[in-house]
Amino acid sequence: MNSQENRRICLVRRPEGMIDPGVFALETAAVPALGADQVLIKNRFLSLDPAMRGWVSDRKSYIEPVPVGGVMRGGTISEVVASNCPDYAPGDIVRAMGGWQDYAAVTAKELMGTIPPDLPLPLTNHLSVLGITGLTAYFGLVEVGQPKEGETVVVSTAAGAVGSIVGQIAKIKGCRVVGITGSDAKCRWILEECGYDAAINYKTEDVGEALRTACPKGVDIYFDNVGGEILNTVLGQIRRRARVVICGAITQYNNTAPAPGPSNYLQLLVQSARMEGFIILNYMDRFMEGAMQLAQWVLSGQIKHREEIVAGLENAPAALMKLFDGSNTGKLIIQID
Amino acid sequence: MNSQENRRICLVRRPEGMIDPGVFALETAAVPALGADQVLIKNRFLSLDPAMRGWVSDRKSYIEPVPVGGVMRGGTISEVVASNCPDYAPGDIVRAMGGWQDYAAVTAKELMGTIPPDLPLPLTNHLSVLGITGLTAYFGLVEVGQPKEGETVVVSTAAGAVGSIVGQIAKIKGCRVVGITGSDAKCRWILEECGYDAAINYKTEDVGEALRTACPKGVDIYFDNVGGEILNTVLGQIRRRARVVICGAITQYNNTAPAPGPSNYLQLLVQSARMEGFIILNYMDRFMEGAMQLAQWVLSGQIKHREEIVAGLENAPAALMKLFDGSNTGKLIIQID
Repeated sequence: MNSQENRRICLVRRPEGMIDPGVFALETAAVPALGADQVLIKNRFLSLDPAMRGWVSDRKSYIEPVPVGGVMRGGTISEVVASNCPDYAPGDIVRAMGGWQDYAAVTAKELMGTIPPDLPLPLTNHLSVLGITGLTAYFGLVEVGQPKEGETVVVSTAAGAVGSIVGQIAKIKGCRVVGITGSDAKCRWILEECGYDAAINYKTEDVGEALRTACPKGVDIYFDNVGGEILNTVLGQIRRRARVVICGAITQYNNTAPAPGPSNYLQLLVQSARMEGFIILNYMDRFMEGAMQLAQWVLSGQIKHREEIVAGLENAPAALMKLFDGSNTGKLIIQID
Repeated sequence: MNSQENRRICLVRRPEGMIDPGVFALETAAVPALGADQVLIKNRFLSLDPAMRGWVSDRKSYIEPVPVGGVMRGGTISEVVASNCPDYAPGDIVRAMGGWQDYAAVTAKELMGTIPPDLPLPLTNHLSVLGITGLTAYFGLVEVGQPKEGETVVVSTAAGAVGSIVGQIAKIKGCRVVGITGSDAKCRWILEECGYDAAINYKTEDVGEALRTACPKGVDIYFDNVGGEILNTVLGQIRRRARVVICGAITQYNNTAPAPGPSNYLQLLVQSARMEGFIILNYMDRFMEGAMQLAQWVLSGQIKHREEIVAGLENAPAALMKLFDGSNTGKLIIQID
């Protein structure tokens, strides 16, 4: 590869309904020039996340949509190759929103810290268990869900990158943890590796019935990544003062029309419960605290996690689809070069 | 009326769909005997509340359903006529769950305090603005909603017994207050008497459009008594960190099948907002605090309220229907005798 080229993947049209790889196109441009107060970074690893479906829509959201024709947004682990900023020097490994491309010129404010060179964990961990994925699990469960010892926690996408960490943190906090996932292999993995107390395969089991068996006293915390019918079913089984953490709604992202909402929402009234959404950006000023806590749990073996690393920037569009058909088996990361 | 008779209104069958007065029947029994540790009370005023629709269903809820054949449950202002308890003496006026009947024999624990004889407010106020109605408005808005000065508060059933007090407390707390109600007369009343900043007639206006005009920056707190389409519309216009207080869902209580939930619930995620239900029983130990605060605001003229007093226990079933067709113009109270 010519090091003076910048391969970049741009959004060429907005998806309607189910996203497909054809909404993206690979193009080649010059490496961006380094402006005053800027840092030129070379992206090494790119995180693929369900939230990306939202970023390419023009629906009202917490963040501006990626413009059609623009480089696709994405969190990266990047290496500083040139710097006009005193805080960053060539060779530094940084967290960035470097996008789906080889190079980006960014200001220091757009970087999210330098990765300590002595942390004995793979760099990709900073996009998975120590990155937005792990931090989403951590702050969503701990701050929004507020788990207490002895409570029952239910997690959807329980074997997913976020869900599997939620489940393990809930176990560390002394909760009974029930996972809902989409295959027997995933059920086995969360039971055997992640320490879940029970697993439900929503594709083969009646979720309502399985939940009643797994949570005879009802559900104290539900960490929801799927929305739709599963959210509604769990709402029907919440306990008094339950917390329903709305982290995502992967079943809904590709809908063209709004899906029916959870008709059981009135259980919030009956049970004096709350349903609360969050976005991880709310906790930006506490990322280091969360990452250090997670690193400690990973190093001590209390949190296990999986990464699925796909080589080649050009494969990012196809790889992204795995998030929506459930075929990935760990945090999806693109090794760019 | 023979003072040795106890007229009582019993539930004779469970309603299916819209409740009708025929689910109740008036019968006459002997005045209950006064047991050891009991207080015999004569009910003077009976509160009619939307929650009663739930009490006659056998759906899972926060309280046992009224059994078929049993006396209908209801909050009362009652007079002690005989007492085997040291804390209560004949002539005391008490708050009770005396039910839809002339007399009840209850334990001291079932009574909710004696009304101070020197409070210069009508006794019926203890069922309306100082009763469960006012307390629901107070704790729901103040504790669940947590209004802050300068925020925008939207209230549905804004001219209703609870809603009109919510709106006035929100004004006292320094908020901009927008009411949604069902007639031009009610709109005028909340604007002119209750001090709302804007009023929306949901029967003649496009609620979404009217809300955008009335709340150009979006909604910080929505106090919901109706559910259904209005809840969904307001959810579409919440601001960051909004609180949606689920107090009731009067549009839903008479449904035979679950209504569609609010499809805009994902705005909770986008806006890092929460939707929280509550029941007033959660605040039972703080009723006196709430009632005294409300009494102060009523006496100072900062809270106005209306009572619609219907004479005659026998008229309670028909009067209850007014709550579901919106034809009442104030807190509905039955003057029993």
